[in-house]
Amino acid sequence: MELSRRQALAGAAMTAALPLFQSNHASADAVAPQHQVASYYRYKVGDILVTVVSDGAATFPLADNFVLNANRDQVNAALDKAFRPKDQLTIPFGPLVLNTGGKTVLIDTGSGAAAFTKSKGAVGQFGANSAAAGVDLSKIDMVVISHFHGDHVGGLLTADNKPAFPNAEILVPEVEWKFFMDDGEMSRAPAGRMQAVFKENRRVFDALGRKVTPYQWGKDVAPGLLAVETIGHTPGHTSFVLSSGNDKVFIQSDVTNTPDLFVRNPGWHVSYDQIPDVAEATRRKVYDMLVAERLKVQGYHYPFPGVGNIEKDGSGYRVVPVAWNPSI
Amino acid sequence: MELSRRQALAGAAMTAALPLFQSNHASADAVAPQHQVASYYRYKVGDILVTVVSDGAATFPLADNFVLNANRDQVNAALDKAFRPKDQLTIPFGPLVLNTGGKTVLIDTGSGAAAFTKSKGAVGQFGANSAAAGVDLSKIDMVVISHFHGDHVGGLLTADNKPAFPNAEILVPEVEWKFFMDDGEMSRAPAGRMQAVFKENRRVFDALGRKVTPYQWGKDVAPGLLAVETIGHTPGHTSFVLSSGNDKVFIQSDVTNTPDLFVRNPGWHVSYDQIPDVAEATRRKVYDMLVAERLKVQGYHYPFPGVGNIEKDGSGYRVVPVAWNPSI
Repeated sequence: MELSRRQALAGAAMTAALPLFQSNHASADAVAPQHQVASYYRYKVGDILVTVVSDGAATFPLADNFVLNANRDQVNAALDKAFRPKDQLTIPFGPLVLNTGGKTVLIDTGSGAAAFTKSKGAVGQFGANSAAAGVDLSKIDMVVISHFHGDHVGGLLTADNKPAFPNAEILVPEVEWKFFMDDGEMSRAPAGRMQAVFKENRRVFDALGRKVTPYQWGKDVAPGLLAVETIGHTPGHTSFVLSSGNDKVFIQSDVTNTPDLFVRNPGWHVSYDQIPDVAEATRRKVYDMLVAERLKVQGYHYPFPGVGNIEKDGSGYRVVPVAWNPSI
Repeated sequence: MELSRRQALAGAAMTAALPLFQSNHASADAVAPQHQVASYYRYKVGDILVTVVSDGAATFPLADNFVLNANRDQVNAALDKAFRPKDQLTIPFGPLVLNTGGKTVLIDTGSGAAAFTKSKGAVGQFGANSAAAGVDLSKIDMVVISHFHGDHVGGLLTADNKPAFPNAEILVPEVEWKFFMDDGEMSRAPAGRMQAVFKENRRVFDALGRKVTPYQWGKDVAPGLLAVETIGHTPGHTSFVLSSGNDKVFIQSDVTNTPDLFVRNPGWHVSYDQIPDVAEATRRKVYDMLVAERLKVQGYHYPFPGVGNIEKDGSGYRVVPVAWNPSI
């Protein structure tokens, strides 16, 4: 706002100055506490308590190939339209803790405690935010993994490569498990990022003695938690429908990455999508369903707390965030 | 989602069941902590630290005259479009604590501690959320009031009618002060709600010995905090531009009530608007300015944390919330 405009808005009522800066206090009293609130948030789905426990957010420069089929100008235009800074991205991470049917269930783990140091505290916040939320990680009964990327499975291990959830059964999508643990698939994978994904999964799951329970689509993997095939992002990528009574929420995992780009432009392919055309078909099918059914959606890479509804907007969609409830 | 649709989404990969419900734990281990996170949120405006400290949210049935110039069906359609429940409203309250220029400044107070008991904890959360944020109310140097409604001034007093900010200078809009403390204006005010507003202000300010500092529009009332005339909601209703370096945010106070109704439909008059036509003119002027300048806005009655940008949408506007920052 320019000064002239400020003055215009301020109107004509500017007469003599009043002693507005009187204060009895030394400025030393005004030292500000600098901590951010712990980023967890609770809501109910019928009888089920959902706790979104943020693992933080990563900020990095926009790479030219971040969107495979849109150029830098197009991506910057989308960021600008969403009032986000250009030429950079901030991607948050939202694991979920469910209290359902007497079980404590975690969906996806964040990147793990080692990421906290590496990112100077930006990522790897799951442990601290869980503690603030009163979630005891030793009492988690089940960890349900949506797919095998490091920001979803890395937290299965502590910083010194021990099991982070010593008393939990680890459930993984059967198709994902078969693909990423197959030596032939690994040998045929392109060098670079894909080889790294294979190696990271072997590192994580070998440290767990490969002691996992593969699960199948179309079945409840925990009370009220239906596993749904939403492949394309990875070969075994899984979403979930969480239901209790008449209430439900669609837990999309990575059907889209950041909504500012990929909900608004469902035809855009994020470089992390392993099978881009299949991922796009899945995305359009899921989002058309979310619109038609007015179904709430929880997005792992949506801004915290990451729950909202979807409306159609031109050739894409947009997220209408749920109104924050200060009392559950 | 219908079962047929669920199965379709789930795909064909449904073979033999696996033992998915194995767990080593008794369900007694899974007792859920039920507390919501404390609703405070921090962000920087240049060198200034802003802490939004929620006072909670009130939920009440939709009254036929809540919007003076829209009927129940129209209001319900707007609520439905925003994915909110019909026939009820939830209105949040967002006081702000600023650490600016060595001063700790509070803008508006919430309804006060007495409201906590009366609302069974839904409202009057400012004290608890301040404590969680590490804000010491005895060290607040200045309280800046935007206008004289109970949800903005009620918290000036404790539950037993003592000053809640014993060491703070209380700054009030000069025009608002003159209007509401004028015995002639009070005698001419309509019975019912308007009489109650006059009486509530006398109750609050008499308990403070009427010891306030009236402030004027067009001047900084605290370091970086410019008071701006935005009348209509009340005769002395004030907004603020908070600036530091190249960064700024427009603190709108009650230029709109809930954005789902009044940002989307700026021509609608909430029953709380004392001079509805003037309030509407102010609202349109402010929102056109927010769009033209791409200026961030902080809304007292926006869903927590209540900060976003504004875009034009048809004949109205919509809020694009700022992406939550887990680290400040």
